[in-house]
Amino acid sequence: MAVDYAAIAAAHTRIQPYIVHTPLISGGDLAEKLRINLSFKAEYRQRTGSFKLRGALNAALQQPDAAGFVAVSSGNHGAAVAYAATLLHKPAIVVMPADSNAEKIALVQSFGARIVSDGVTVANREDVVTDIQQSTGYALIHPFNDERVIAGQGTVGCEILSDGSPPEAIYVAVGGGGLISGIATAVKALHPGTRVIGVEPESANDAARSFSSRTLVSLDAPPETLADAVRTMHLGSLTFPILLDKVDAMVTVTEEDIAKAHEMLLAHLGENIEPTAALACAPLLTNTPPHVKSACVVLCGGNWSQPAKDQSDAAADTSGS
Amino acid sequence: MAVDYAAIAAAHTRIQPYIVHTPLISGGDLAEKLRINLSFKAEYRQRTGSFKLRGALNAALQQPDAAGFVAVSSGNHGAAVAYAATLLHKPAIVVMPADSNAEKIALVQSFGARIVSDGVTVANREDVVTDIQQSTGYALIHPFNDERVIAGQGTVGCEILSDGSPPEAIYVAVGGGGLISGIATAVKALHPGTRVIGVEPESANDAARSFSSRTLVSLDAPPETLADAVRTMHLGSLTFPILLDKVDAMVTVTEEDIAKAHEMLLAHLGENIEPTAALACAPLLTNTPPHVKSACVVLCGGNWSQPAKDQSDAAADTSGS
Repeated sequence: MAVDYAAIAAAHTRIQPYIVHTPLISGGDLAEKLRINLSFKAEYRQRTGSFKLRGALNAALQQPDAAGFVAVSSGNHGAAVAYAATLLHKPAIVVMPADSNAEKIALVQSFGARIVSDGVTVANREDVVTDIQQSTGYALIHPFNDERVIAGQGTVGCEILSDGSPPEAIYVAVGGGGLISGIATAVKALHPGTRVIGVEPESANDAARSFSSRTLVSLDAPPETLADAVRTMHLGSLTFPILLDKVDAMVTVTEEDIAKAHEMLLAHLGENIEPTAALACAPLLTNTPPHVKSACVVLCGGNWSQPAKDQSDAAADTSGS
Repeated sequence: MAVDYAAIAAAHTRIQPYIVHTPLISGGDLAEKLRINLSFKAEYRQRTGSFKLRGALNAALQQPDAAGFVAVSSGNHGAAVAYAATLLHKPAIVVMPADSNAEKIALVQSFGARIVSDGVTVANREDVVTDIQQSTGYALIHPFNDERVIAGQGTVGCEILSDGSPPEAIYVAVGGGGLISGIATAVKALHPGTRVIGVEPESANDAARSFSSRTLVSLDAPPETLADAVRTMHLGSLTFPILLDKVDAMVTVTEEDIAKAHEMLLAHLGENIEPTAALACAPLLTNTPPHVKSACVVLCGGNWSQPAKDQSDAAADTSGS
């Protein structure tokens, strides 16, 4: 079964009782400055702090007989799988490399998961997961290359289109491609005139290169980028064909663009959004006048460990959602 | 064992792995307008959407052998107990009157609780809970009259004082008195010079009358007020003495004040805070120049079911946290 709109609508019905229908937030003075109708889809306010809960829940709810769930994650997907498993009163194991950020580990633990990290590296983590699956019988929830996960992420697109006039374009950060595949599938079914635009850091441009060459390109090594949630080295076998079929354009931005967009969004929203959420906004905020009159930017997550830059003299510690 | 600072510090250590250390948000232009140093403790960004998770978790984590947990709640406490129980892989039952708001029921269910509401009224709900406790063996988590719950809520006070210069006054909404009892206990131990001021709607002024008469006063019927999370008819046997001992003042505000404060805060924060959160801010926003030079207002929750008033043309549905 391919991921189609029916699968996304079914996912929405399935997960709606457990997720937040996140608001569309006005671009306010940023919109005025850009002279476009700008809105933000506030997935940083989703439970567990990112859109990842949608896909993880859609996968978990379809496996009621699983003994537990296991995932590989450097953060948001792990938190989502932990939360989804806990909600179903099942155990979750999240495999994280031993050199993972301590705050990311604490985040995943805070939602009830057991962390396996001793001796785990980026190179051996898939083997570790396979061993865990075999010894425990837990079901794997892949962060993006799973039709149930893609369908779950697609519900972001349904909500954007149900909550206002369809924008001319929707901007989405691209890592493994689960979020943009789902959103593009929903949008092309519901309002094909809306363009879906993927955004990558220049240093992690595998999806942009795959899109233009129509060949699945992989990076040689995990990229260094501020947008640390899109360090995936290549698209998945399921997300790549959807990207080719449904996405309208891919653009890349510099690290400077991401940093600048992040600073502008922190000041505008006064909330602790992640640099990866700012990635999707960078093409609009940092380039010459945008080519669209209306846009929605998906702000994918808010699990950022540095203090929020608000105007308070207080040191805001928001390690969490 | 009475609730003292040691119990609150122990609660903080116990619950910290599972809660958000919520930020102190600057009063921005509201502070400028009032010409005071104003900050907001953003408990509407706490997991489950309110501070109630702190107390519920502190109680649940001390009962690892309970078969499950049961609570009576019209909303936020139910969500908190549901979440805390789920995190411990235990079942939760929340007793809600049959005429409860459908969105509040959905909120509590969304965190994994079973709702018992058939035939439940405000009058018989305590009996229903007793029956459930006896038939299931589940442990009751009271919304405020429990030392573990009070100690958990007190961690809000620790965080306020750890995150910036101690304010001259902290404003807190008062229902059953669990939040203010905990905060006042922490504040009087850590920085006694900071005044702790309780705020009630005029129509629900039992705590203010109890405070001034030094006799526990009960309302005759549940009050009608916009601040629907403080419709408790009287303080608890545990919270009343703490209020008398540690709280510096009680003030009441009109429904008009609450509505005006709510509108101002929605516009200022762009977030879906509850009217009950605005209650605590009403004395500062709607009266003649405040008598304090610096204040922190505890914005206790964000589970409000009407659309957020932002500047977007989108209909934001934020039924959730």
